[in-house]
Amino acid sequence: MGASGRSWDGFSVGMVLFPDLTQLDLTGPYEVFARTPGAEVLLLASSLEPVRSEWGLAIVPDSTFAEAPLLDVLFVPGGPGVGPAMEDEEVLGFLAEREPEARYVTSVCTGSLVLGAAGLLRGYRAATHWLSMDLLGLLGAEPVFERVVKDRNRITGGGITAGIDFGLVMAAELRGEEAAKEIQLMMEYDPAPPFGSGSPESADHDLVERVRAARGPVQEKRAEVVRRARTRLGL
Amino acid sequence: MGASGRSWDGFSVGMVLFPDLTQLDLTGPYEVFARTPGAEVLLLASSLEPVRSEWGLAIVPDSTFAEAPLLDVLFVPGGPGVGPAMEDEEVLGFLAEREPEARYVTSVCTGSLVLGAAGLLRGYRAATHWLSMDLLGLLGAEPVFERVVKDRNRITGGGITAGIDFGLVMAAELRGEEAAKEIQLMMEYDPAPPFGSGSPESADHDLVERVRAARGPVQEKRAEVVRRARTRLGL
Repeated sequence: MGASGRSWDGFSVGMVLFPDLTQLDLTGPYEVFARTPGAEVLLLASSLEPVRSEWGLAIVPDSTFAEAPLLDVLFVPGGPGVGPAMEDEEVLGFLAEREPEARYVTSVCTGSLVLGAAGLLRGYRAATHWLSMDLLGLLGAEPVFERVVKDRNRITGGGITAGIDFGLVMAAELRGEEAAKEIQLMMEYDPAPPFGSGSPESADHDLVERVRAARGPVQEKRAEVVRRARTRLGL
Repeated sequence: MGASGRSWDGFSVGMVLFPDLTQLDLTGPYEVFARTPGAEVLLLASSLEPVRSEWGLAIVPDSTFAEAPLLDVLFVPGGPGVGPAMEDEEVLGFLAEREPEARYVTSVCTGSLVLGAAGLLRGYRAATHWLSMDLLGLLGAEPVFERVVKDRNRITGGGITAGIDFGLVMAAELRGEEAAKEIQLMMEYDPAPPFGSGSPESADHDLVERVRAARGPVQEKRAEVVRRARTRLGL
């Protein structure tokens, strides 16, 4: 470890857990980070109790937010739990406090809304789940419909499965393209989606509109949280 | 529930946990199964203690193997832990005992080696991680280098990230293509791998050979387990 407490060629990744996160937002990037040479990956939560994700799968944290060491990478997943997380003082305080020392501030899916609510995406280009693009804009970010968006040290991924693309981009950032290519080979990431419906641009229009309508109430509730966050941030 | 204990339009998925599994083998398909209408997804292990996956992420089981209800889908992930799992009498006994009642017997990555060690892939075409194709053949299966392989009620996925393609194929099997397409859209599964190295066929030859050489000792140790399994199975 150097005098700063930072190891010479390793790096630490702090991945935020909160109730009702979408577990694949986290477990996709986790698989890549953990395979990246030199990585110490820490799953962080407000206590050491298992955190229940959206569909029930419960993950055991490695450390509390308060006791986390110096973190080179901050990472926030998305999911239905982002509503409460956008108003969780401990989560927001943790992100704001750790941002200055972090080399990268990152998210996948609607995790970018939590970064936005913490005031960390103002003036940054960023990605999110396709259903939440407008909400991300309300938090002072410039929403971009891409799988992975890099703007200075903010690196954000799109919805859920974009976390694997995001993870590989991060591996290349942290350890170079050769390391990332090797991880991609070991993870056999040569995707063959059985349908062409993975994007609102490629899916049938009717399907997109049906999903949008069904999700309307959830998105409206999330919009209320975003409006309160805007007030708090003075936007 | 019908007289058989099977619900009329729901279905249960039993996902096997064992120490040192590759968590994304499980969490990719889990995300799809859990989103499939009518699914009850159960994470199963020998006890209710959290199970530590390959890189440390620990998952809390929902039920023990012994107490699991009737299961329509059996699922086995892969990972470094498949060596011990291929000789774990409780895991093998559970799979063999539950196979007759299961509508589908499935795996991702080297999970197919565990199915093979339980005697459940003899004479079936099946997929596995590219590094373990030959070992799968030694267990009486016909190894196929494809993302998802269906042979009668055995549906198996290739290495790690193939689990998402596998999950969507299963969702279509269980609930039809429209349901699967909607899940794919919500999961924004429109992958954009940053490199072309996701398959031994597309990656640089040097990289493939370097990975194969580095993995040699691990694969040789796994081969010893497979040879013992062959003896046990009378192959």
